[in-house]
Amino acid sequence: MTISNKAKIGKNVSISSTAKIFDNVIIEDNVMIGDFCSIGFANSPDTSKNLIIKKNVNINSHSIIYNNSIIGENTIIGHNVLIREKTIIENNVQVGSYSDIEGYSKIEQYVKIHSNVHIGQHSNIMSFSWLFPYVILTNDPIPPSNIRQGVIVEPFSIVCTRSTILPGKKIHFGAFVGASSLVNIDLKAETIGSGNPFKQRGPINLIKIPDTKLNAYPWISRFKKDYPEDIEKIYKDLRKKFIK
Amino acid sequence: MTISNKAKIGKNVSISSTAKIFDNVIIEDNVMIGDFCSIGFANSPDTSKNLIIKKNVNINSHSIIYNNSIIGENTIIGHNVLIREKTIIENNVQVGSYSDIEGYSKIEQYVKIHSNVHIGQHSNIMSFSWLFPYVILTNDPIPPSNIRQGVIVEPFSIVCTRSTILPGKKIHFGAFVGASSLVNIDLKAETIGSGNPFKQRGPINLIKIPDTKLNAYPWISRFKKDYPEDIEKIYKDLRKKFIK
Amino acid sequence: MTISNKAKIGKNVSISSTAKIFDNVIIEDNVMIGDFCSIGFANSPDTSKNLIIKKNVNINSHSIIYNNSIIGENTIIGHNVLIREKTIIENNVQVGSYSDIEGYSKIEQYVKIHSNVHIGQHSNIMSFSWLFPYVILTNDPIPPSNIRQGVIVEPFSIVCTRSTILPGKKIHFGAFVGASSLVNIDLKAETIGSGNPFKQRGPINLIKIPDTKLNAYPWISRFKKDYPEDIEKIYKDLRKKFIK
Repeated sequence: MTISNKAKIGKNVSISSTAKIFDNVIIEDNVMIGDFCSIGFANSPDTSKNLIIKKNVNINSHSIIYNNSIIGENTIIGHNVLIREKTIIENNVQVGSYSDIEGYSKIEQYVKIHSNVHIGQHSNIMSFSWLFPYVILTNDPIPPSNIRQGVIVEPFSIVCTRSTILPGKKIHFGAFVGASSLVNIDLKAETIGSGNPFKQRGPINLIKIPDTKLNAYPWISRFKKDYPEDIEKIYKDLRKKFIK
Repeated sequence: MTISNKAKIGKNVSISSTAKIFDNVIIEDNVMIGDFCSIGFANSPDTSKNLIIKKNVNINSHSIIYNNSIIGENTIIGHNVLIREKTIIENNVQVGSYSDIEGYSKIEQYVKIHSNVHIGQHSNIMSFSWLFPYVILTNDPIPPSNIRQGVIVEPFSIVCTRSTILPGKKIHFGAFVGASSLVNIDLKAETIGSGNPFKQRGPINLIKIPDTKLNAYPWISRFKKDYPEDIEKIYKDLRKKFIK
Repeated sequence: MTISNKAKIGKNVSISSTAKIFDNVIIEDNVMIGDFCSIGFANSPDTSKNLIIKKNVNINSHSIIYNNSIIGENTIIGHNVLIREKTIIENNVQVGSYSDIEGYSKIEQYVKIHSNVHIGQHSNIMSFSWLFPYVILTNDPIPPSNIRQGVIVEPFSIVCTRSTILPGKKIHFGAFVGASSLVNIDLKAETIGSGNPFKQRGPINLIKIPDTKLNAYPWISRFKKDYPEDIEKIYKDLRKKFIK
């Protein structure tokens, strides 16, 4: 086992014998770290910075987390994930295998990120939103440049498989981006957008639960697995805040 | 080397000194396992389940295979592959590097899966079909939900690079999906489909071998590398079974 | 540490204790190799071949580089990169994390390859060009076949996020491929192409720097970070050579 003696390790922490823990890592209680992980890495180590892994976090094998980030409580990190410096992940987040978080980003509570999602720098993924496999959030409007216009995904939004969001675009509250879209505009709240070229298609209540006439969206009305008990109230309060 | 003493290891098995083999793994003869692999992992170990790796299998470095799966004879697994629980892989399959098989799926004999393919749960990829790089098979029609409508790919089909198949859709026998398609219908047998929006374009014999007037499809008429000697007969028999 | 005693290691080389170095690897001075790397691997080791890693190269964790390749001076390889045999990488190249270079390819000086780029065999990526995340270069016109028609990307070209280039197609000097394109023609020099279906949209000077009327392209006129001091002269000389 190769755990730096400058790392601080809480109680009931399980670290695989093949994982590597660098200096300046603070691991709280009940954390699990899988095989072949590289935790707290930095290209240019800076002893004034820490990686904080909060309680009950589960990091699966082959994942790499840079120093100078925070991983919130109860968060689950998949296999082969890369999380770079200055990433703030709040509590109860899931990050799927092979996802690549480039740093300088905020991922708010209860966000679910599926496999192989690419999150460019300066992204803000707000609470309770979903990014499905192979979604890409970009940031450079005239590549290559030093301009960084991060993507904003507002709460309770859905971005389906393989969609790309162009620099600085905003997915407004509870919107739905269909699969394989190229999002080049701000998508209105509670609106369906899809395609390449991308178009707004109408309100989210156009999508029905298969074989029924029931609205599939807002999804929180029918899918509450692992969310807080007062999720309906949280939803209403956030909706009021974001849709004026 | 970190091989569980509850694993059963056959003859002439080569396991890298940096690989990890968990409990309840059964490895048959002539298997090779590369560096930094994690073989037989489970989030909640269940001693009544096994991972069976049949003879002559070759697993390349950094791959992760969960417990409660079967890897068939002569199968080759690339680097950085993730195969989750309840995956049945038959004999003579290839799985390319970075591919992510989410479990609860069946991959039949002689299927070839290229790099970075994402196979959602409840997929059935039938014998002798090909999935090229970055293909995604989805399964949830109203994400997020608990509904799982797996994709079915019938024998001898071709799904080209970067195509996405939407939940529950079926690629019928010997069909051809062009690159970067978003498949939202069942594609007829021996038919070309492509695009986003997706359209059926006509019979597979429209595609010619470059610089000739010869039909490129069915591909088995011109590409027999590594297939069984009686592949023509197998093809005819399966065609009769699937095209009525 | 597992370094073959048949490897030749230069001065001031830093190899992580968890990395693996195979036979026939030649590592020059000032090279860094990160955790869990597999350097010089070969399916069928051939002692007449070498992997040469030139001076000042930095290889990040979990990367795999096959034998019989060359990595040029000052090149940076990200995390989880796979580079197969017969890859020639010149000096001052960057290869982003999760990129998959399938071998038999040439990547010329100062090329920048972002994350999760897939480079099929027989590609030639010429000097000073950029491939952004999830770009795919294909090579087989009638998959599956033994035909390999590699992609050529000429100098100073830009291929934006998630674009796919079909077999044998050429991106001419200083061209710009927009995001999520499916390139099925040769793209003219200094021309914008985008979409699926793909179309040429006009000269690169149509794209402006945001909030200005200034041309964003050729990009070298405004972005010189880390390039040689005489980059303007190099650009003019190469332009003369490629645009006649």
